[in-house]
Amino acid sequence: MSQPQKPLILVCNDDGIFSPGIKALAEVADEFGDVEIIAPDRQQSAVGHAITIQTPLRTRAFRIDNRFNGQAVSGTPADSIKLAHNQLLNRKPDLVVSGINHGSNAGINILYSGTVSAATEGTILGYPSIAVSCTDFDEDADLTGAQDAARKVIGYVLNHGLPRGVTLNLNAPSGALKGIKWARQADSRYIEEFEGRIDPHNRSYYWMTGKFQLIDEDGHNDISVIEKGYASLTPIQYDLTSYSLLNDLKDIEL
Amino acid sequence: MSQPQKPLILVCNDDGIFSPGIKALAEVADEFGDVEIIAPDRQQSAVGHAITIQTPLRTRAFRIDNRFNGQAVSGTPADSIKLAHNQLLNRKPDLVVSGINHGSNAGINILYSGTVSAATEGTILGYPSIAVSCTDFDEDADLTGAQDAARKVIGYVLNHGLPRGVTLNLNAPSGALKGIKWARQADSRYIEEFEGRIDPHNRSYYWMTGKFQLIDEDGHNDISVIEKGYASLTPIQYDLTSYSLLNDLKDIEL
Repeated sequence: MSQPQKPLILVCNDDGIFSPGIKALAEVADEFGDVEIIAPDRQQSAVGHAITIQTPLRTRAFRIDNRFNGQAVSGTPADSIKLAHNQLLNRKPDLVVSGINHGSNAGINILYSGTVSAATEGTILGYPSIAVSCTDFDEDADLTGAQDAARKVIGYVLNHGLPRGVTLNLNAPSGALKGIKWARQADSRYIEEFEGRIDPHNRSYYWMTGKFQLIDEDGHNDISVIEKGYASLTPIQYDLTSYSLLNDLKDIEL
Repeated sequence: MSQPQKPLILVCNDDGIFSPGIKALAEVADEFGDVEIIAPDRQQSAVGHAITIQTPLRTRAFRIDNRFNGQAVSGTPADSIKLAHNQLLNRKPDLVVSGINHGSNAGINILYSGTVSAATEGTILGYPSIAVSCTDFDEDADLTGAQDAARKVIGYVLNHGLPRGVTLNLNAPSGALKGIKWARQADSRYIEEFEGRIDPHNRSYYWMTGKFQLIDEDGHNDISVIEKGYASLTPIQYDLTSYSLLNDLKDIEL
């Protein structure tokens, strides 16, 4: 009788395949099954759900820390998941995890995040998928608490699955884990987003910068949960339909 | 007594500031108010909600068709809207419109679309915003119907506004307009997404390609409405929280 096969866990991120965060997540995934790391070959923060259609993609295989099989993809996080699903894996993954991102992906940051889009792409393709971020963007941040939180969520999802169309988005502060709280995505935005400068040739250019602004007023959102020192866990969906407005407007003839 | 100010309409897209589609949309916007075109300086299809944080942005002013003020931005559609809001406009727009995209942005394409992300960014910043696409991706497609649909939707939104957090996503077939139907985003995905090839140096590479697959089974979705020859109109939101799953899971301790 053959051994039952261990679950296959596909690990991706947006900081690039050689970031500390992806190794920290692979270590946790390794406790649950076989790990394949397939991720962008370089930093791809804030690429959102971009995919590469104008140029071809290349891949390169690596051993990471002499321990994990890795393939670096010359594209975005969403490209990496699509390519893994279609071409690079020998069997279908049981779980997709993306991260550990160096920096928060809570509130409006969810829309800009390549880390979250990799997990969302996993969901679109039919796999249970989790995005994991540490709210401290220092590359040397203590990821222990984020790892502990990821361990709990991965264990839950491998046991219980997730409904089709839903991704889990986890954000943990650095340091020890105080606990995990369910939360919705905070309404938020950036203000004063650009710094204008003049180059040596006297032409203007702009750097994106800006201050994060929380608009939400009650405390049951991801940003507020994190501010209280907890990890936040938010189920998000790729069906963007506003059903409440659709219901209000559906009888209006245009 | 001074004339009441005409509404200011900001026009963006993802095909680039010199595409036929953006001119077609600017012509419609011009019937309602003052038009400013601020859009990427080149093709940015499928960039999703990417923003540019690693390199600075530049802008260049143009007259388009000797008729419209235009500024080309060396970044993504979302960058263009952020820069317009923060730096480039003398007054705040009353409406943001994005398109007319050459190609459908219905179903799962909404997530990958730069056209939609420009409108979503407008919504995040607090402006009523509409994305407009023609489902025929031929640059010479007849955009008359898409223009007629855009005219009706722009008129509606300027009169009635939109609730905070909601964007309208309009998709019209080429040719004459048969009518507009409200619809939700179809559940859909791509299958067989890559074509593997070998380069002259004997190394493999991949082109993204793939077939669109409709998963939805009833007819009240954007893809089905378009297949019946109508334009589809879908209210979408940037709050991605799955409230139904949050409600189901919120008492589970992790």
